[in-house]
Amino acid sequence: MPEIRKDPVFGRWVIIASERGLRPNEFRPGSGSETAGYACPFCAGHEELTPPEIYSLPDGKGGWRLRVVRNKYPALVSDGSVENRRAGIYDRMDGMGFHEVVIETPEHGRLLEQMPAEAVADVIRTFTLRVREIRKDPRIKYVMIFKNHGRNAGASLVHPHSQIIAMPMAPLRVMQEIEGAADYLQERGTCVFCDILKAEAEFAKRVVAENADFMAVTPYASRFSFETWILPKAHASHFEEMPDAQAERLAEVLKTALTKLSVSLPELSYNLIVHTMPVREPSAGHYHWHIEIMPKLSHVAGFEWGTGFYINTVSPEDAAEILNSGKRYKA
Amino acid sequence: MPEIRKDPVFGRWVIIASERGLRPNEFRPGSGSETAGYACPFCAGHEELTPPEIYSLPDGKGGWRLRVVRNKYPALVSDGSVENRRAGIYDRMDGMGFHEVVIETPEHGRLLEQMPAEAVADVIRTFTLRVREIRKDPRIKYVMIFKNHGRNAGASLVHPHSQIIAMPMAPLRVMQEIEGAADYLQERGTCVFCDILKAEAEFAKRVVAENADFMAVTPYASRFSFETWILPKAHASHFEEMPDAQAERLAEVLKTALTKLSVSLPELSYNLIVHTMPVREPSAGHYHWHIEIMPKLSHVAGFEWGTGFYINTVSPEDAAEILNSGKRYKA
Repeated sequence: MPEIRKDPVFGRWVIIASERGLRPNEFRPGSGSETAGYACPFCAGHEELTPPEIYSLPDGKGGWRLRVVRNKYPALVSDGSVENRRAGIYDRMDGMGFHEVVIETPEHGRLLEQMPAEAVADVIRTFTLRVREIRKDPRIKYVMIFKNHGRNAGASLVHPHSQIIAMPMAPLRVMQEIEGAADYLQERGTCVFCDILKAEAEFAKRVVAENADFMAVTPYASRFSFETWILPKAHASHFEEMPDAQAERLAEVLKTALTKLSVSLPELSYNLIVHTMPVREPSAGHYHWHIEIMPKLSHVAGFEWGTGFYINTVSPEDAAEILNSGKRYKA
Repeated sequence: MPEIRKDPVFGRWVIIASERGLRPNEFRPGSGSETAGYACPFCAGHEELTPPEIYSLPDGKGGWRLRVVRNKYPALVSDGSVENRRAGIYDRMDGMGFHEVVIETPEHGRLLEQMPAEAVADVIRTFTLRVREIRKDPRIKYVMIFKNHGRNAGASLVHPHSQIIAMPMAPLRVMQEIEGAADYLQERGTCVFCDILKAEAEFAKRVVAENADFMAVTPYASRFSFETWILPKAHASHFEEMPDAQAERLAEVLKTALTKLSVSLPELSYNLIVHTMPVREPSAGHYHWHIEIMPKLSHVAGFEWGTGFYINTVSPEDAAEILNSGKRYKA
């Protein structure tokens, strides 16, 4: 069983999951779809290669257009106790939680941004639906939704998919972000993300995509070159409470942002993370859910990723200009 | 000039340094030492390819055995004001600071762990000497010493070198670590790192190297597979105050730890970071300087690096056992 351990200095929780080391990696030479006899477990017709299905959407022709399955190599598992076990100065608990995979399309080579907006909206509505289902388990405190795309972003499979990890505590970094936002509200009386939306609308030069409900920007203090955030214009703390109709507006802006990124950064790798409140917390005036997309340019900035100390060689203003021009970025 | 920007939510400072995007990268195809006419700027005989020398140690034969030079593509530069400039909700300041490179050896292919212990001690003493020199500038609050080795760790040059970045504020992550340690002292009355040393000596199974003055361990809540920390046994908050004689003991343990890592993890890439107190702070009972070595296994864990949420597939107990066995790790 995976184990969750707490760093005694930082209070940071780390998942130690040895079984996950066994998962295949298509990006390793000789193990991907170019290999004779390779069968992608996420393709239509290979359903028996995944763990049992949790949820799916039919394609109207007897097949599926989206599937949710348990992760075959989970970081957390559903049995186990969430009791804190202290041994001397160290704290740990069983690696209890849920780890699901959202297979976004039956088509192996169809990227998220190449899917029709309605299909992207289906993916988003599936995320919110799964969170509302998972939070019924009282042991779950936080649900993290993320997508790793491409080898430099740590993806191990090519077929478009996202992941959902539900855990018995909120990660430290999530709590720090929420506390930072709470401090801002305390000092200035407004939501920091609402203020960012106002400032970015006025400045305009960091806006990458926008419609009635959402805005995508390259944030002022971008840690990564071409980092892009998508924020809902109306204040809301919990992603999973998004009305279904808004999912279509989000799909539009997400498609535009990812398309611009993949045009300017060919062979794009990225991590996409939904930042949202812990599921047991009530609606909050200080926190504002949003999506952060972090492109991982090849072999750059390994140092910064581990230290929390960031050096970014492309200003967010330049990044937005390049993305909006449709030009290719040359490092 | 580079710019330092503050994230309004997190309070995290980010360096935006466009000039640094122009630096060469030997790991790109067709740009390294295998290329005809390539001249490594760090090799003996190529001194004119680096910015002016700041410090060096003679080799006794008219040449040098170690050099310190300004970074040709600095993240921070020495002119500029450290005044905070607020524009609306955003804070920024000039990218003032120092960015130096320590060329550890005149030999292109001699890794740090392959150098004699005395030469490694020279590198360490050079670090402490440079910090004591740099801190004379009252604008400097923190000096970060680090080494990126290998392409997966973000290194751009092969020739063994380390870097020193001096900055007008302490990075957020440094402050969070120090606050975590201060909380621990407040609650339990002891230094958390002294307690870690005691716990690890007793448990023994995470110890990788040890002598009279230093211990190297794979920490209990390792974020990265084969993460290794080196701690001085005697409590001390400031790295730069290390007695010169201790540098030799540190060199021994560092050599042993890096040798074990490179035996078990061929083509090892790693980031090595000295964690120490801000230079203007007095000696502290709660903080204990140490070195963190983070191996970056190929294309693994890109997600975790950007989020502060870590999944580690090799337990620190297994990592120490593999390192101490001299066996090669197979992912």
